[in-house]
Amino acid sequence: MAAIEDLTTEFARLPGIGRKTALRLTYFLLKRSPEEIRRLARALESVAERVRACSRCGNLTEQDPCAFCANPRRDAALICVVEEAADIAAIERTGQYQGLYHVLGGRLSPLEGIGPDELNIPALLARLQQDGDAADGAAVREVIVATNPSVEGEATALYLQKLIAPLGIRVTRLARGLPVGGELEYADGVTIAEALAGRRDL
Amino acid sequence: MAAIEDLTTEFARLPGIGRKTALRLTYFLLKRSPEEIRRLARALESVAERVRACSRCGNLTEQDPCAFCANPRRDAALICVVEEAADIAAIERTGQYQGLYHVLGGRLSPLEGIGPDELNIPALLARLQQDGDAADGAAVREVIVATNPSVEGEATALYLQKLIAPLGIRVTRLARGLPVGGELEYADGVTIAEALAGRRDL
Repeated sequence: MAAIEDLTTEFARLPGIGRKTALRLTYFLLKRSPEEIRRLARALESVAERVRACSRCGNLTEQDPCAFCANPRRDAALICVVEEAADIAAIERTGQYQGLYHVLGGRLSPLEGIGPDELNIPALLARLQQDGDAADGAAVREVIVATNPSVEGEATALYLQKLIAPLGIRVTRLARGLPVGGELEYADGVTIAEALAGRRDL
Repeated sequence: MAAIEDLTTEFARLPGIGRKTALRLTYFLLKRSPEEIRRLARALESVAERVRACSRCGNLTEQDPCAFCANPRRDAALICVVEEAADIAAIERTGQYQGLYHVLGGRLSPLEGIGPDELNIPALLARLQQDGDAADGAAVREVIVATNPSVEGEATALYLQKLIAPLGIRVTRLARGLPVGGELEYADGVTIAEALAGRRDL
């Protein structure tokens, strides 16, 4: 049973998948055809082989530079900084953003030993200090810091703000407040406090 | 992004894994080294290549007959019938069973068009009708039906009982009642009724 055991162990390494779920996944696949199992194996192989970090923004991509960096129709004067490549998809789903991205690969976390050098921050500074970011030479006008609204995400945002502001570039942060569709009754105090502090004229 | 998209789609085919979880798994792997991704791919390949159904009992195995069927120290006069190969692990964990197994590959379900011929039942009958099941020629003395305690599992058990009893072989069913560690207050009515009907002298 070494093969079954190995696969279960590999599945159990994935986040949110315990030993029992791993076993269930393994047996699910075993009930399928070997061809279906191989399809998943090939998809993994292909990702391992072809997906790399974009040398400009750190986004995960099969071509370098990535589709965003290479797109002349995106606004190169605007850079949105995110913690992970997965966050880009969340922002793209809004259809409201036309600038470029920069992926930090995490957030500052002294407890976990993650300082500025562990993140993709030097590359961000290099992009900002170049005369122009895009092929057309437009200088960066604004950096939108879209790190997570967590303690560490906030700390990372503040750190970036201190670093970037001296360059004369506007640094903004995504607004915090009540999530649309949420209910005041169930919102936590900190969120309500942020929503109060950030209140807007009607 | 075709490779990332493909992998996400493959993950989303797995049971209990929706689109969002699939994306999270993909990005988790992308943060790991290509070598780690390949390890999962190889584990899948190896399962697809090497794991087959045991020709005797239907258990999933890398050798044929499987480790249970090939073990002369298991009691060949006892056959425990389960729905899926995964159920064998649950019974083995008890350490209380020393007989052989037979995997049906499902349960009778007229609604889903699963009749006796779709299950591994003819092979079970063949095993029972042979003079002896094991190498030492011991005839089967008892068949323990361990299908799930669901309506379909019960129907399958009854069907097997009707089929096997005429062969003069004892057919038993796992006891139903209150799960150990459970609380009477939270047990459903049917379970309590079964526990009452199956009550034992102290």
